[in-house]
Amino acid sequence: MTNTSTKPIQSVQWHDGKLILLDQRMLPLETNFVTLQTSEQVWEAIHSLTVRGAPAIGITAAYGLALAAEQFVGDNFDEFKHYVHQQQHFLTSARPTAVNLTWALERLVSILQAHNDITEAKSALLKKAHEIQREDEHVCRSIGEHAFLLFNDGDRILTHCNAGGIATAKYGTALAPFYIAKERGVHYQIFASETRPVLQGARLTTWELQQAGIDVTLITDNMVAHTIKTKNINAIIVGADRIAANGDTANKIGTFGLALIAKALNIPFYVAAPLSTIDLQIRSGDEIPIEERQAREVTHWHDKAVAPDGTQVFNPAFDITPHHLISAIITEKGIIHDNFEAELHNLFENTKGAQTK
Amino acid sequence: MTNTSTKPIQSVQWHDGKLILLDQRMLPLETNFVTLQTSEQVWEAIHSLTVRGAPAIGITAAYGLALAAEQFVGDNFDEFKHYVHQQQHFLTSARPTAVNLTWALERLVSILQAHNDITEAKSALLKKAHEIQREDEHVCRSIGEHAFLLFNDGDRILTHCNAGGIATAKYGTALAPFYIAKERGVHYQIFASETRPVLQGARLTTWELQQAGIDVTLITDNMVAHTIKTKNINAIIVGADRIAANGDTANKIGTFGLALIAKALNIPFYVAAPLSTIDLQIRSGDEIPIEERQAREVTHWHDKAVAPDGTQVFNPAFDITPHHLISAIITEKGIIHDNFEAELHNLFENTKGAQTK
Repeated sequence: MTNTSTKPIQSVQWHDGKLILLDQRMLPLETNFVTLQTSEQVWEAIHSLTVRGAPAIGITAAYGLALAAEQFVGDNFDEFKHYVHQQQHFLTSARPTAVNLTWALERLVSILQAHNDITEAKSALLKKAHEIQREDEHVCRSIGEHAFLLFNDGDRILTHCNAGGIATAKYGTALAPFYIAKERGVHYQIFASETRPVLQGARLTTWELQQAGIDVTLITDNMVAHTIKTKNINAIIVGADRIAANGDTANKIGTFGLALIAKALNIPFYVAAPLSTIDLQIRSGDEIPIEERQAREVTHWHDKAVAPDGTQVFNPAFDITPHHLISAIITEKGIIHDNFEAELHNLFENTKGAQTK
Repeated sequence: MTNTSTKPIQSVQWHDGKLILLDQRMLPLETNFVTLQTSEQVWEAIHSLTVRGAPAIGITAAYGLALAAEQFVGDNFDEFKHYVHQQQHFLTSARPTAVNLTWALERLVSILQAHNDITEAKSALLKKAHEIQREDEHVCRSIGEHAFLLFNDGDRILTHCNAGGIATAKYGTALAPFYIAKERGVHYQIFASETRPVLQGARLTTWELQQAGIDVTLITDNMVAHTIKTKNINAIIVGADRIAANGDTANKIGTFGLALIAKALNIPFYVAAPLSTIDLQIRSGDEIPIEERQAREVTHWHDKAVAPDGTQVFNPAFDITPHHLISAIITEKGIIHDNFEAELHNLFENTKGAQTK
């Protein structure tokens, strides 16, 4: 299975009017692809974590809206617009925390105002979805180039969850510098925390890094402090699901604890994310909604119970890392080390139209 | 299955010359008891985690040595002593980190010097094993009484792993105050972290607290920081596998991270442990050996892989919490809040013969 290519697998693909997704729930046991043809199937795929990772969700939702639009039957443009808006709201409801979902769908819908012909509009929506995917690949590559400057040959780096190639169009965000290092013959030793309850670290990060021949060691989430201390970890780098205007970051549950531990043990804690993850409408992390998921994710493994019947469970899918615990935020526009509120704002001042909400 | 009795289950029992253990590996799916008749079976039961928890391991090993002694055939007392010493070393090798194992076996062996008759010595060894078990029950009750003074009605308390009734003769260490509160109608809301990779929190702590009708909510290990913040946790209390002379504490992997998070979020971090867990021979945590276990515990759940074939794994079973992160150590002799080195030493000065190594 393992090869030494550094080419990341594409988790979201468009072929012949159909959306093809790598089924990330079955990894690493099975490498299955599913074919989607309706927005209901796309909603379900996003909701069920068939596709996950904020950028990949955004790309998937964009194609989902293009699919939905294609299936509109009628010739009244106002009715078409109303239908597309309904589908936008429907797809937005599939996951509450990732801002890319909202952002991608809004970008598609916003082009409708330049059209009054249904056939042309359908084609423009699909074109925009393709554009979002291509953009994301460039964005991830740029994030990787910037983040690469933060590390040295021989570094030991810890990452959480999967902010990897399969979470984006390609390369990933937090994992992007690892692919670039590999291309250039620079060696990092990566430690991946397994990321309970859904085990994206164990199932996805180890899998995609192994596929690329990158040195990766798996630990459980509670081994982080001991591993930092005994294996001399140099830094932690994670992705983000949403970044507030002040730099507070929503990311996979466990990130907040990692940031506290990194600070206490005096190693840098980096967040790598595209501008599309930054939500200037939200002033601080307190305003970011945190999705709570079903107890069964915690109490069962496949069909086997790991806790007694009727166990009460608290299962938040994300947490908020306050900006003061973050050493730097790496975007496609460069690295911000501090003064997050002003610097994040500046990114958008210098990026005309990148976030026109 | 759930009842509202506060009587903890006894995980180690002696009946008719046989040792009966609750098989803690099968919980919560099955409540099985296994019957052991040889020291090889006892070694295997300790090594394989059929029995776990430092005090319960000590009690089990003590009965194991009594079983081994009983099976000695011969009439030469020196040969008998030599055999018992061999069996002591064999049983000591079953787990490297828990000091109670060493301590219980040394207590048994030390009584041989008062004997010169094999039959009497066999009987004395068994009597001493019974004594260690009864003592542990009293010790745990005392720990619970002292720890109970640290909490208030309505408190929300987080615990890790299973320092519970089934890890000891009865009541447990970190869980002992919860049983005492329940007896007295005082309500705590307990949060149990699942404790990967072996899931003692999910499988054992939720199970035994539910059996006693105590309010418990399960979280994954990486949810601790978010839970402390959003559920207003008042304190963390854990057990210990070994405490060094300066208060540094070896406990289940993840404890060090919890202590760092507790400190950062400004809540107390308590360690509850009997004197038998304190090892004054060891000056600091740096000298405590950390057991590393097989990769499969992390990469597989039952027979199902959760990580790709050939994944590199780091699987330390314990970590060391430095004493400066510990708010108090609760023993059967009372609560030590600081100045651990002197105060731990004083405990033994005032406890004649408690640690005669």
